[in-house]
Amino acid sequence: MVESESAHFDKKGKTKTPRQGTVAPDRLFCYKENTAHPATGILFHQCPSGSAAMFQYTLINKDPSCQARRGRLETPRGVIETPTFMPVGTHAAMKAMTPAQVEETGSRIILANTYHLHLKPGEELVRKAGGLHSFMAWQGPILTDSGGFQVFSLPKKKITEDGVFFRHEVTGEEIFIGPKEAMAIQNALGADIIMAFDECIPFPATADYAARSIRKTLRWAEACLQSHQRRDQALFAIVQGGIYPDLRRNCAEELTAMDFPGYAIGGVSVGEGLELLKQVVEYTAPFLPENKPRYLMGVGLPEDILESVARGIDMFDCVIPTRYARSATLFTRVGRIRLTKRNYRRDFYPVDHSCDCYCCRNFTRAYLHHLYNANEILSAILAAIHNVHFYQTLMKESREAIEQGRFRSFKEEFLAGYNRAES
Amino acid sequence: MVESESAHFDKKGKTKTPRQGTVAPDRLFCYKENTAHPATGILFHQCPSGSAAMFQYTLINKDPSCQARRGRLETPRGVIETPTFMPVGTHAAMKAMTPAQVEETGSRIILANTYHLHLKPGEELVRKAGGLHSFMAWQGPILTDSGGFQVFSLPKKKITEDGVFFRHEVTGEEIFIGPKEAMAIQNALGADIIMAFDECIPFPATADYAARSIRKTLRWAEACLQSHQRRDQALFAIVQGGIYPDLRRNCAEELTAMDFPGYAIGGVSVGEGLELLKQVVEYTAPFLPENKPRYLMGVGLPEDILESVARGIDMFDCVIPTRYARSATLFTRVGRIRLTKRNYRRDFYPVDHSCDCYCCRNFTRAYLHHLYNANEILSAILAAIHNVHFYQTLMKESREAIEQGRFRSFKEEFLAGYNRAES
Repeated sequence: MVESESAHFDKKGKTKTPRQGTVAPDRLFCYKENTAHPATGILFHQCPSGSAAMFQYTLINKDPSCQARRGRLETPRGVIETPTFMPVGTHAAMKAMTPAQVEETGSRIILANTYHLHLKPGEELVRKAGGLHSFMAWQGPILTDSGGFQVFSLPKKKITEDGVFFRHEVTGEEIFIGPKEAMAIQNALGADIIMAFDECIPFPATADYAARSIRKTLRWAEACLQSHQRRDQALFAIVQGGIYPDLRRNCAEELTAMDFPGYAIGGVSVGEGLELLKQVVEYTAPFLPENKPRYLMGVGLPEDILESVARGIDMFDCVIPTRYARSATLFTRVGRIRLTKRNYRRDFYPVDHSCDCYCCRNFTRAYLHHLYNANEILSAILAAIHNVHFYQTLMKESREAIEQGRFRSFKEEFLAGYNRAES
Repeated sequence: MVESESAHFDKKGKTKTPRQGTVAPDRLFCYKENTAHPATGILFHQCPSGSAAMFQYTLINKDPSCQARRGRLETPRGVIETPTFMPVGTHAAMKAMTPAQVEETGSRIILANTYHLHLKPGEELVRKAGGLHSFMAWQGPILTDSGGFQVFSLPKKKITEDGVFFRHEVTGEEIFIGPKEAMAIQNALGADIIMAFDECIPFPATADYAARSIRKTLRWAEACLQSHQRRDQALFAIVQGGIYPDLRRNCAEELTAMDFPGYAIGGVSVGEGLELLKQVVEYTAPFLPENKPRYLMGVGLPEDILESVARGIDMFDCVIPTRYARSATLFTRVGRIRLTKRNYRRDFYPVDHSCDCYCCRNFTRAYLHHLYNANEILSAILAAIHNVHFYQTLMKESREAIEQGRFRSFKEEFLAGYNRAES
C-alpha cells in the first residue's frame, strides 16, 4: 500500500498531478531578473535588500479623512487587495472549513503557524509534500509567522542572545529556534510571505526590558535577512517596542533602513486592550515606509481592525472568526450574537439579514441553535463560513470606503450599528 | 433582536424567502388528484391504500445473473435511481458536511432520525420552520425512520400492546410512542418517505417472542396507515420476524395485503452478521411486491450492500461512512485504510487513486494523517466527503452493472479487489 515518495515526485519536487496554479519551489529559484512570472506576468527585479521583487506593493490612494490606505500587494500566487484580513489555519488547515469554503468567503491570503507546523508534522514533511500550498491545497498566497509569538508565550523557555530554547509539548525534546532556524523552517514550509524572528515583548514590560529586547529583535532581523534563501518568499520585519513610543520609533526606523519588502507591528494583542492598541499603531505606523505593506499581527475584533485601518494598517490576521464560531458566537451588523442562547430557539431569521454567505442564504438561527445544542460539527462549519465571510465583507466595504475617501464615516456608521447590539 | 415568528412566515407556512424547490407543506395538502405536481410534473392519483401516488416506483430491469433490480422512485422532490444509498443526518444534519457537500457526493436522498428529532429540537419546531427540508436546507427527498429502532434499543423502556414508554435521556420525562404518535411526529417533520412504527426484535430472540412481536408490528402498521395524514408523504411498512423464515414471510405477506407504497426489511444490523443478513434478505425479499421499492434498514458496509443488492434490495441507509470518517477509517477500492497509522505519514498519494471526490482531487493521505494527528475538524469533513462519495460511486456502478446485466460479476470483481486490502 505504501509507495515510495520518489515515485510520486519528479526531480523538480513537483507532484505528478500538479494542482492548478502550483509552482514547484525549485522552479522559482531560477527565475531570471527582469523576466515575467509565467503565471502572473509580474516582472521580477532585484530589490535593494537582495530579494527579488516578485512582490510589489502599490499604494492606490490614501483616505483624506484619516490615515487609511487602499493598496494592492502583488505576489506570485495572486493579487491581494488591501486592507486585507487573513484567516488563520494554524496546522495548515482552517478550523472547520475546506479551502474551497475559505475561498468562497472572499479570503485571498491565509496564515499558517510556523511553531505548530515545526512540531507537527515538521517542515521537512511539508517540503516533501511540495510545500504548504500543495500540502493543504490552498493555491492563493500564504503567510507564515516566525514562531516567535508562540515560543515566547510558552511558560517554560530559555531566552539567550541567539534565540530561544524550549521543550516539545509532547516528546519533551529540547528545541532551539533562532533567526537562522526560523528562516530554515519557513523556507521549507514555502509560504509566500514569511516573518523575521523577533522577541515578542510581554505586556506589561519595563522600558528597560523593552529597550534591551528590541536590540535583540533588530540583530535577529539582520540575521534573518542574511539567512533567508528563497527569492519567491517575501521576508517581512516585525517592529517591537512594547508601549514605548520612542522604542517603537527607533525599532521601525532601524528596520526600515534594512529595506524589507513589508513591515509588521508585533507585540500587540497581548492583553493591552483597544485603547493601548490604537496608541501603539498611531505612534508606530508613521515611521514605517509608505511604499511597503503594513501588517498588524494577531488583530483582532472588527472594532480593532477598523480603528487600525484608520491608522494606516493594511494587513490583519486573527483566529477570532473561526474560534468564536466553535463557541457559538457569530458576528452580525448589529453586534455579536451567541446562538446557544434560548431566545434563538425559535428564531427563523438568518444569522444576519444583510449577509449573503452560504450559511445566511440557507439556514436560520433556530437551525444553528439546534446544531449547537445537538453538538453537531456542522455548527462550527456554518458559523466559521459566516464569521470569516463577515470579516471579508467588512474588509471589502472598508476598501470601497477608502477608495471613495469616506472611511472615517464608514467606520463610525459601522461601529454605531455594531455597538447597538446585545452581546 | 428576536422577531416574532408570524413576521417570518406567511399564511401558508412558507418562509418569506423560500428556498429553491421548497414547497410549503400546506400547499401539498390541497393538490388535486390527476393533476401534475408543479415542480416535477409527476401526476398524482389515488393509491388503493388511500395515499396519493406522488411516489411512483418503476422497475427498469432485473439482472439475469442474480436478483438485483434497477429501478426509479419518483418523488415530489426529485427522482431517486435505485439501488440507492441514503447517508444519515441523525439530528437533521449530516455529520461534518454541508448539504451542498452531501449533494456533491451524488447523494439524492438522505435519512433523518425521528427519535432524535422528537427529543431535540422537537417536531413542532421543525414544522414551524417549514419542515425538515426547509430547516436543514436539503431540497432533495428525505426519509425519516419511525423511531422504533432507537426506542427499542434503549436499556430502560416498557413495551405495551399500544407502544413504548421510555424516559427522555436528558430531562427524565416519561415519553410514550405508539403508531399514532410516530405518525404525528413524522407528519410534522415532513419527510417525503416515512416509516411505520414497528417493534424491532432483538437478536437473538426466540421464535415465540418473534411470532408475538410481528402480530404487534402488523397491528401497528395498520394503525399507522389509518392515522397517517399527509398525502405528500409515502408511508413504508417494515417487515420484522427475526431470523425465522416463516415469520418473515408471514409478516411480508400480511403487510403486502395492506398495500403500502414501499417496504422495508427491519430488525437487521442488530448483530446478526453478514451470513444471517444475507439469509434474511434472501427469504424475505421474494415475498415483497415487485412493483414497490424495497429498503434494507441500517445496512451497512460495502460488502453488505452489494450482497443485498444481489438479493433484490433497492434502498439502504447507514451511519458507517460518516462515522468511520471521524475515526480515520476511509474506504478505498482495495479495502479500508486507517489514516492514523504511521505508514501514511509520508504517503503523498490520494486516499483512493480512482476516486474523483473533492478530498482525493486535492489532498494526500499524508495531509489527512496530519489532520487526524492535529485533531483538526477538517479531517472529519474531508473523510466524510470521501466516504460518502465512495458509497455513492459504488451505487452508481451497481446501477450501471444491473442495467448491463452483469451485477454478479461486478460484485465479485469489486469484492475481490476490496478484500485484498490491509485494514
